[in-house]
Amino acid sequence: MKKFINDPMKVADEMVEGFLAMRGDSTRKLETSRVIVRKDAPAANKVAVVTGGGSGHEPALLGYVGKGMLDAVVVGEIFTSPPPGAILDAIKATHSGKGVLLLLGNYAGDKMNFQMAADLAQLEGIAVEQSIADDDVGSGPSDRRGVAGEFFIWKITGARAEAGGSLQECLEVSKKVNSLARTFGVAISPCTVPAKGTPTFTLAEDEMEYGVGHHGEAGLERIKTMPVDQVVERMADAIIEDLPFRKGDEVAVLINGLGATPVCELYIVYRKVKQMLDARGIVVFRPYVGEYFTALEMAGFSITLLKVDAALKGLLAAPCDTLAHQVV
Amino acid sequence: MKKFINDPMKVADEMVEGFLAMRGDSTRKLETSRVIVRKDAPAANKVAVVTGGGSGHEPALLGYVGKGMLDAVVVGEIFTSPPPGAILDAIKATHSGKGVLLLLGNYAGDKMNFQMAADLAQLEGIAVEQSIADDDVGSGPSDRRGVAGEFFIWKITGARAEAGGSLQECLEVSKKVNSLARTFGVAISPCTVPAKGTPTFTLAEDEMEYGVGHHGEAGLERIKTMPVDQVVERMADAIIEDLPFRKGDEVAVLINGLGATPVCELYIVYRKVKQMLDARGIVVFRPYVGEYFTALEMAGFSITLLKVDAALKGLLAAPCDTLAHQVV
Repeated sequence: MKKFINDPMKVADEMVEGFLAMRGDSTRKLETSRVIVRKDAPAANKVAVVTGGGSGHEPALLGYVGKGMLDAVVVGEIFTSPPPGAILDAIKATHSGKGVLLLLGNYAGDKMNFQMAADLAQLEGIAVEQSIADDDVGSGPSDRRGVAGEFFIWKITGARAEAGGSLQECLEVSKKVNSLARTFGVAISPCTVPAKGTPTFTLAEDEMEYGVGHHGEAGLERIKTMPVDQVVERMADAIIEDLPFRKGDEVAVLINGLGATPVCELYIVYRKVKQMLDARGIVVFRPYVGEYFTALEMAGFSITLLKVDAALKGLLAAPCDTLAHQVV
Repeated sequence: MKKFINDPMKVADEMVEGFLAMRGDSTRKLETSRVIVRKDAPAANKVAVVTGGGSGHEPALLGYVGKGMLDAVVVGEIFTSPPPGAILDAIKATHSGKGVLLLLGNYAGDKMNFQMAADLAQLEGIAVEQSIADDDVGSGPSDRRGVAGEFFIWKITGARAEAGGSLQECLEVSKKVNSLARTFGVAISPCTVPAKGTPTFTLAEDEMEYGVGHHGEAGLERIKTMPVDQVVERMADAIIEDLPFRKGDEVAVLINGLGATPVCELYIVYRKVKQMLDARGIVVFRPYVGEYFTALEMAGFSITLLKVDAALKGLLAAPCDTLAHQVV
């Protein structure tokens, strides 16, 4: 295992230290837990938007803490859910009286730990709601994972909270985004969790994992490599048919690098997606192309389409100030 | 060779098509050459700032075309200098009467081709100057390569031109930045040029290329792998001693991922660099951490320090609007 790390057991801690060295002016770490919050937490008179999960997805999740997006991120070990106590600390540290909305992906460990923390917070009289993302078409027909579409959920829900939305309104818009977002991922090489030391999967030289998850989970099938236009066509068709997206729809498009994919290849992916959307009369509101939600050094990418209306466009375009995403 | 491409000979063309699908509102491609210019080129009454070189470094170079940075980028094949005719086209398309400044890295092919284009442009009465970057301490003591420090040259020179600087003033500031910037890179795995199909170098499981170039060029030495703090200490010491950077200096810091390095590892690198700078009384003006100037899917990173004064800080903070870098 070749990695630019020190101790495999300290990757999350040292990564957080590096983050704080960059963003200590606008964020801080709670003393008791590995939770990053806005420096002004609890932000006065607004719903707190909190997420968390395993690390190894940088710049997600902690790169999106800041005004206009997330109030707190609970940072787990690499690909490992954070414990309920840390989630509870995040809730208490961000709660300003208008309630706390927990955004999470559809993973068993996260759901269990967030539920426990929510229960404990409610016992203390804090209003808490949860919204679970499951945008990954590549997972299969049901019980889908939450993947890169969560970026849109964080951005839009954070903007709604910043604009004074109630807990119920923030919950509703987060669920609306999840219901209108669809993602599909593919990989040609795996990643290695430092504490484990071996790749999450192996592929032959002529194979790709079609429908891969953000932790290297197997997808719909293992297929032969093919020109990228062909695999993008399959992926985008699956996404478009699933919602379905229709002629005249307007969409935000996210081409997300999973870690080791050259940026020029992401541009080539967007080229094909845009051609397909143009041919179908689907209008691109805004493209997002780069590393938004990675899986360590996995070589792969995902495509996310989000159907947008005037309200969602306004929230995507609303100001935010975070390390990894700024809108002014 | 596993890659998300179609035809290995069309990577640069299709990458440019994808770029234009994203940024066709503010940039355009010249009809005659693979040159990306600001849509309003020639921008009235300003010095044109033009660069070019091989592709495979995305988001560099073309990701920095736009108001406040570059007027044009001449896009070569992967890791291959663009031809003089294309460079001449870029000069003519951006020339507004105040002259054209060519920014390039210290590579034999680029220098030859830019010189030919400059000579031809001057024959046509266009004032052209050239500025050659050689910020790479890892190249050795002399004849150094131009690497990630070029990002600062593009940003600052572009801002100077946007603010009305003369050709001579833009040339001077570009040389000043180059003289105050130092970079050092390291890699643990190579990249593969699509048209070639084999890795640029090979390393044993316990080796890293110390001082690697942006195309996989060999550096000062091949060393054994070690904890990242140790290699960062060596790299940063070499940078600091070379200028030298001294107590009380203020610096911009760029931690640049070369392609396949997990973002969390870049944060860990910044953590150590910041500790070292703090210990030496060197003040960080602003950190830049991410993929700014890559080498396809090479796993590696570079550290750049730029000594800044009030003038350079103002130019770094000046507005720009490009795909890969925005300041408002």
